[in-house]
Order: sequence, then structure tokens, then C-alpha cells
Amino acid sequence: MSLDPEGHALEFLFHPNSIAIVGISADPADLTRERFLRPLLDFEFPGHLYPVNPKGGEILGLKVYPGITDIPGTVDFVIISVPAKLIVPVVHDCIAKGVRAAAIYSAGFSEVGTEEGEALEAEIARIAGEGKTRIIGPNCMGLYCAKGRLSYRSEYPKESGPVAFLSQSGGNTTHLVQMAAPRGVRFSKIISYGNGRDLNECDFLDYLAHDRDTEIIAIYIEGIKEGRRFIRTLRDAARAKPVILLKGGCGEAGFRAVACHTGALAGDDSTWDGLCKQLGIIRVDTLEELADMIVTFLFLPLPQGRKVALIGTGGGASVLAADACTNSGLLVPPLPEHLKNRLLRANSLAGSILTNPVDTLSIFQESKFVETVKTISPWEGVDLLVTFLLLADMFPAYLGKYDRLVNGILRSSKVSSKPMAVVVQPASHPEMFKETFLAQQRLVSSGFPVYPSIPRAANAISKFLDYHLRQ
Amino acid sequence: MSLDPEGHALEFLFHPNSIAIVGISADPADLTRERFLRPLLDFEFPGHLYPVNPKGGEILGLKVYPGITDIPGTVDFVIISVPAKLIVPVVHDCIAKGVRAAAIYSAGFSEVGTEEGEALEAEIARIAGEGKTRIIGPNCMGLYCAKGRLSYRSEYPKESGPVAFLSQSGGNTTHLVQMAAPRGVRFSKIISYGNGRDLNECDFLDYLAHDRDTEIIAIYIEGIKEGRRFIRTLRDAARAKPVILLKGGCGEAGFRAVACHTGALAGDDSTWDGLCKQLGIIRVDTLEELADMIVTFLFLPLPQGRKVALIGTGGGASVLAADACTNSGLLVPPLPEHLKNRLLRANSLAGSILTNPVDTLSIFQESKFVETVKTISPWEGVDLLVTFLLLADMFPAYLGKYDRLVNGILRSSKVSSKPMAVVVQPASHPEMFKETFLAQQRLVSSGFPVYPSIPRAANAISKFLDYHLRQ
Repeated sequence: MSLDPEGHALEFLFHPNSIAIVGISADPADLTRERFLRPLLDFEFPGHLYPVNPKGGEILGLKVYPGITDIPGTVDFVIISVPAKLIVPVVHDCIAKGVRAAAIYSAGFSEVGTEEGEALEAEIARIAGEGKTRIIGPNCMGLYCAKGRLSYRSEYPKESGPVAFLSQSGGNTTHLVQMAAPRGVRFSKIISYGNGRDLNECDFLDYLAHDRDTEIIAIYIEGIKEGRRFIRTLRDAARAKPVILLKGGCGEAGFRAVACHTGALAGDDSTWDGLCKQLGIIRVDTLEELADMIVTFLFLPLPQGRKVALIGTGGGASVLAADACTNSGLLVPPLPEHLKNRLLRANSLAGSILTNPVDTLSIFQESKFVETVKTISPWEGVDLLVTFLLLADMFPAYLGKYDRLVNGILRSSKVSSKPMAVVVQPASHPEMFKETFLAQQRLVSSGFPVYPSIPRAANAISKFLDYHLRQ
Repeated sequence: MSLDPEGHALEFLFHPNSIAIVGISADPADLTRERFLRPLLDFEFPGHLYPVNPKGGEILGLKVYPGITDIPGTVDFVIISVPAKLIVPVVHDCIAKGVRAAAIYSAGFSEVGTEEGEALEAEIARIAGEGKTRIIGPNCMGLYCAKGRLSYRSEYPKESGPVAFLSQSGGNTTHLVQMAAPRGVRFSKIISYGNGRDLNECDFLDYLAHDRDTEIIAIYIEGIKEGRRFIRTLRDAARAKPVILLKGGCGEAGFRAVACHTGALAGDDSTWDGLCKQLGIIRVDTLEELADMIVTFLFLPLPQGRKVALIGTGGGASVLAADACTNSGLLVPPLPEHLKNRLLRANSLAGSILTNPVDTLSIFQESKFVETVKTISPWEGVDLLVTFLLLADMFPAYLGKYDRLVNGILRSSKVSSKPMAVVVQPASHPEMFKETFLAQQRLVSSGFPVYPSIPRAANAISKFLDYHLRQ
């Protein structure tokens, strides 16, 4: 494979000129149409789209062809969604047509755990390999690339971004996007590769390591096909970019589920732990943590150290915020007397904690909050500021006024001499939902890293610092 | 103190016949009116309410008295919200009027860390003690008791329930209620006692241990006043009812924040850990975990063991669900062949995992889901069932159809021979908020324990089993 990213052997996957979808039907209940054709139309895929069904006719305004070989002109890419037992002739047709790659959505192969399933998967790989058609899957959702206007979900972001997500599970890609997109994360490539029989994690990881559009690589992996090659590829990828890894199937039951899900061998958990430590991979335990880490890498400017100033409201909330930071390995140093005195002038209310955490009602008054940040941020004893908006406490009195809180934070960020992160507590009441969402969107579109809780913010920021300390 | 709960020395606190509020004003921006008088009106407090302000006049339709001693008839309870430096004469007035108890909202006492603050707090306690007026606080929100129609927040539930929350922080009570109430939790008493100078955690804990309306005691505590008495009271309480404890100020910074917040000495973290283990107290690290534990104690019938069947959709999600359970110390045993075969008949779709976790599309079809639960639940290899609705994956296709998913779960619970818990993933998109909330409400009002994520459900269920195993 070439080291020139533009010339990478897999680049063509993300920019096909024409796509055929096999196993689609005009039936109103047909899921293949909704899962694969509709998103391509919604993304305004600029090339040719060919629905394939022996019955012919028309689907969503597009002419239907009885078979792949009946399509006039070339077909670069095929999405296959026919029952497993009908798949072999479709793969033969791909080869006959000179199709460069096919993503097989169909399940019922090695993951079933039967000899037949395993044999069928091997057979497809053999046929495709001889015919030089590359296979993604089987048992996968395939590819998303906003620049190539490829997507398997209509609601995925239409804009491209610097994060790649390589995932054996298609469902987990959707969960991650839904958690990360409202927090400002945009993706270069999302690759759901299922059983990974032909193109596997090594191929895609190598591609992403070279991909100029990808700055951060996130991985959900259940098991690997080629041990040595995987370690080599992972090491090279981690040298090129931050790699954040969620390993599925760590426990005994998860291990068993992996075998049924993608037919992979999950591998020993401590081996994965050792590997991640050795190669400088950020390992996470949940999709939520994966989203938090991506947000941090994307939006938090690197603090010079672990010393955090906590600014929010509520005595008990401040105590718990400090505990959460300490538990995650961050430091919450006390403010020196002269700064406390300066804060006291802007925060004269009894009951405020002004030592760090700073429990300040100034958060409700734009200019006072700006003054608070101006006072604290230049102090050399602190490396970053975390502001928390615990909106539950402001409901219902502050409903309709979240904008003011956000104004203060946005203005303060312009005068802060240190990186800032913001915690926006999720709405707990339907009346708060929309306003909370919009408040978060304003912070996100101004480039803030936004977290749903202090423990989650503290954990991600601490791991982010660990990563850079190691570099 | 009497052991007869009805005759407990503090019972009168929750059923005053008359309440005066000192430091309230007619000023439209007055917070004391909104914080204390408005909730009492919204809760339809049946006794007399006396706003007190030297200016007289009328507030929210009630006659204002210039001083406590000007009020005709008796005053049982006083809420004091005047600046600290004005408080001594108010306490003298309470005594002159024969007031039985006063909750002091005002801050600016021992928590400020000055000699003056400490002296003032001691002075108030001394005066009140001589006059036999009991003091709650200072620096607190006071009391909530739905049966006594007492509340300091209008949006707290109007209905009473079996959970008591004793908290040094008023803000944390609101955070907990906002997280727990939508999940069906209702409270007998909520006590925000701040600095706890006169009535402290020992007094309230003893009361709650005897309170017939309280079945579960939740505590947020920052520090204690009387070490030996506290341990004795806590032990007695834990023998009577489950006690769930969140200790604030565990880290060095949290410890310092505690000193500023309620003036308490936080104590050594490992001491608290040992104490909880020894006395059978359930210790938690966050308010979120506190809410999860309460939900579990309230709504999950005790499973006979740690063996969980996981039922949901999505291969990757199932793998991560199994991992989360294993990580929390639950067991996820594989289903025997004959059950797998029975499930296969109802779940013939390729790609399903039928080993446990059970990744089944039957969740979308009411009767098939009922059949799935009917098949799995009688098996002796399993002690409880956890169903997960990962709604992000169903958006937008299933918008408007969440009701169907809930119907299946509600019906299946009637045929399940084992306890069931449900995970409802929070909405990630504004369009999902209302429907997700309503789906959750239907499950909650049918008595299900509902959790926002699988790791949180697994953690709480595992700790719940640990607790009962120890008993």
C-alpha cells in the first residue's frame, strides 16, 4: 500500500461513482429501501443509484434493474441485502460486472456459529477475492463519508469533520453519533465492518492512519483477525493520531456475545489493556466515555497541567464537583488570599464558597461572571477552568433565562487566559428539554467542550492529560 | 426520646399549625417570598402563614406583620431569612413568642471560617437552647413533608412516599428530587439542615429511623458533630431500614469546600468506608448513583441471585450490556439449547444473538416480546431480566411508536416469573424528548425500576444484591 494518503488502496471506497442496492423492494415495509437508498438520496449522492430487484419497476423515483448485470454502465459499489442463502449468485454478478467493492448487510454467516455459516462466509470471500471485488462485512451497515455523500443513516451529519469511527457494530456507530453529534463532533469516515471477512480492522485502520481528513481515530472492536498485523497497524496509527479504543466482549458473557455478533474471538482483557498502555492508545469502557474523549480531543485546548478551577453554583454541588475531580486525578488547588479577596468584591453574598471550587452566584450576572473568570484564569496555580450549569436547580425559576447564563460563559471565554470546559446538566423535566438543548448548542457552536456531568468531564480531561503527558 | 414513632420528639417539626417567614418582602425581586412562601401556598399548607416585615402591608394576599411578637395567636415554626448580623433579635423574638422551631436559611456563620461567624452561630444556639426553640441550620433550606404540606420548592412532588432524604446541602436535595421524581420516587421527608448547629444529623437520623412513613433513608453528609452518637444512631438506623449514604468532601479539595460550605469537618475517607462496610450502609459516590439505588430499593423485587438475562436490540449494544453487567459483578449465564431453540422460533431473523444477551427484534412486536419473556423467565438459570430500550437507534424511524415498545414490556411483566428492570436511554434529539419522557412515565407508573444506562442499572442492582446478601 502507498504511503501517499490520496493514493491509498482503499480511497476509492469512499468516493464511488455509482452504487447498486440489491435486495431492495417497493414494498412499503421494506427496510432495505429505508436503511440504504433513502439516506443516499437525503445525502444527495451525486453519482448513479441503481435499485436491483427481479421484479423491476421503480423505487423512490429510480428505475429498478432485475440484476446487477442488467445495469448499463459501470457499477463501483454494491450494497447487498439479500438472505444469506441467496448471496453467492449476487457476488458472482458483482464480479461479472467488475464491481470494485460490496458491503454485505445480510447476516447469517460465521457469527451464527454453524459450519454452514462459516463455510458460506469463506466461500463468498474466496469468490470475491478471485474476482478482485473487495467485501465489507458481511453483517455490517457499511460506509459513511459526508464528503463522498455516502451514508446509511439520513440523520447523520451532512458536514464532514475530523473524527473517524471504525466499528464492528453498526448499531454502536448510531449510538455514538447520536451522543457525539449534538456535542459538535463531526466525522470524516464511519466504517461499520461487521464480521470483517475480507477487508478487516487492519485494512481500515491503515487507511484511517493515512487519511488526511481524519485527525482522531475512534474504534469499537470485538476481536481481531490477524494478530501481528493488527498490532503493527495499531502502533503505526497511534503514532500518527490519537486512537481511542472501546473493546467489546471483555467479560465472559460479552465474549460469548461477540462470538454470536461478529464471529470474532474477543481475546483476553488484560492483553488488550497491556497493548493499549504500550502503544499509547486511550482505552475507554463505554460509548459514553468514547464520546467524552472525542469531545475533549476535539475541543479542549491542551492545558499545561492538571490544576483545575471549578466555577459553578451550589455548596453541595461544589463539594461533589471537587470530589469528582480529585477522584479522577485532577488537582483542585485553593485560591490564594488575594484572589479570594478580589472575588469577594464581585461575590459579596454570604454562603458563597470562594476557595476553589468557587460557588458563585455571579454565574447569573453576565458581567460579574466575566469578572470572576478574569480574576481566576491568569493565576499560575490553575491550568484550566471548568464551569458547571446545574440547570435542575434553576428550574423553573430560570426557565427562559438560560441564554443569559450562556452569554456570560461565551463572553468570559474571550477573557480567559486558560482553556475552559463546560458541564451542562441534562434536562430532567420536559419543559426544560428544548431550552437546555439550545443552550448547549450555543456553547457547542462556540467551540466549547460540553459534558453532561462533572464526573464524566473530570474523567475525560484527566485521560486527555495522561495521553499528552505520555507523548 | 420515645421509641414510639408517633411520639418522637421531632415529630412536631413536620406538622406545624402556623409558620412565620421573617425577612420576606413585597419587592418583585424578593427571593425569600419565592423560595419559602410560594411553595407553602402551592402545597396548600392548611395552617396559618404569617409574612413578617417591619414595613407591614400584604404579600401574595397575606397580611404582613411587623414582627414575630406582633402576630396574634401561636407561631409553631419560623423560617428566618435575614442577613446574619440581624439574626439575634429575631431569635429572641422566637423565644418571646414561644416558637417551637426555626429554620435559618441565612448564611454567614461558622461556614465562613471567621471567628465572628463561629461566635454568632454559637450565640444563636445558646439563646435558642435556653429558650427551648429548636434550630434547623443555619445555612439550610429546611423541611419538606408532603403530608404536612410543607415544602421549600413548588415543583417537589405533592404526594408523599417512603423515601427520606437527609442532606446538609439544600441544592443537592433539589438535584436528587429532579433526578429521582421522574423515576417514580416519592419522599416522606426531605431535610436540608445546613450547618446543623442545634438539631444535627444524629437528631434527624434518629427521627427517620423511627418514622413510620420512612422505609428507606438516603443521606448526603459532609461532616459530623458528635462522633460516638453518630455511629450509634447510624447503626440503629441501618438495623431498622436500608441506609444509602453519599459522603461529600472525600478528596482534599472537597474537604476544604465542605469547611466553607457547612463548616463541618469532613473526616477521613477510609474511615467512612470502613464505617459503611461495618454497619451495612450502602455507600455511593454521586447523586446519580444515589438516585439509582433508591429506585432499585423501591421498585425492584429482590432477585434470588445475581444471574441476569439481558434482552434488547443491537449486537454491539448487547455485547456492551453483557460487559457492563460482568464488570459490576452480575452473572450473564448462557441460555441452554432448548431455550435457544424456542427463542429461534419467535426470533427467526438472522443476526440475532440468542445466547444471553438476547438481541431480539421481538422487542418491536408486542406478542413476540411477551413470548420471549415467557420463554426465558421461568428458567432456573436466571434470577432477573433487564430489558434495554436504546431509543437512539430507533430514531427517527420509531418516533411515534415508543408506545408499542412499552406495551410489550408492560404485558410481558405480567407473565414474567422473575423481577424485571428496564433501561430507557435518554433522548439525544429534541424531537425525541417528549415521547421518551412519556414512555418512561408509563413504565414508572407501572412500578418498573427504570435506569438511564446499562452500566448504571448493573451497578445499582449489584449493590442491592450485596446489601441483601449481607443481611
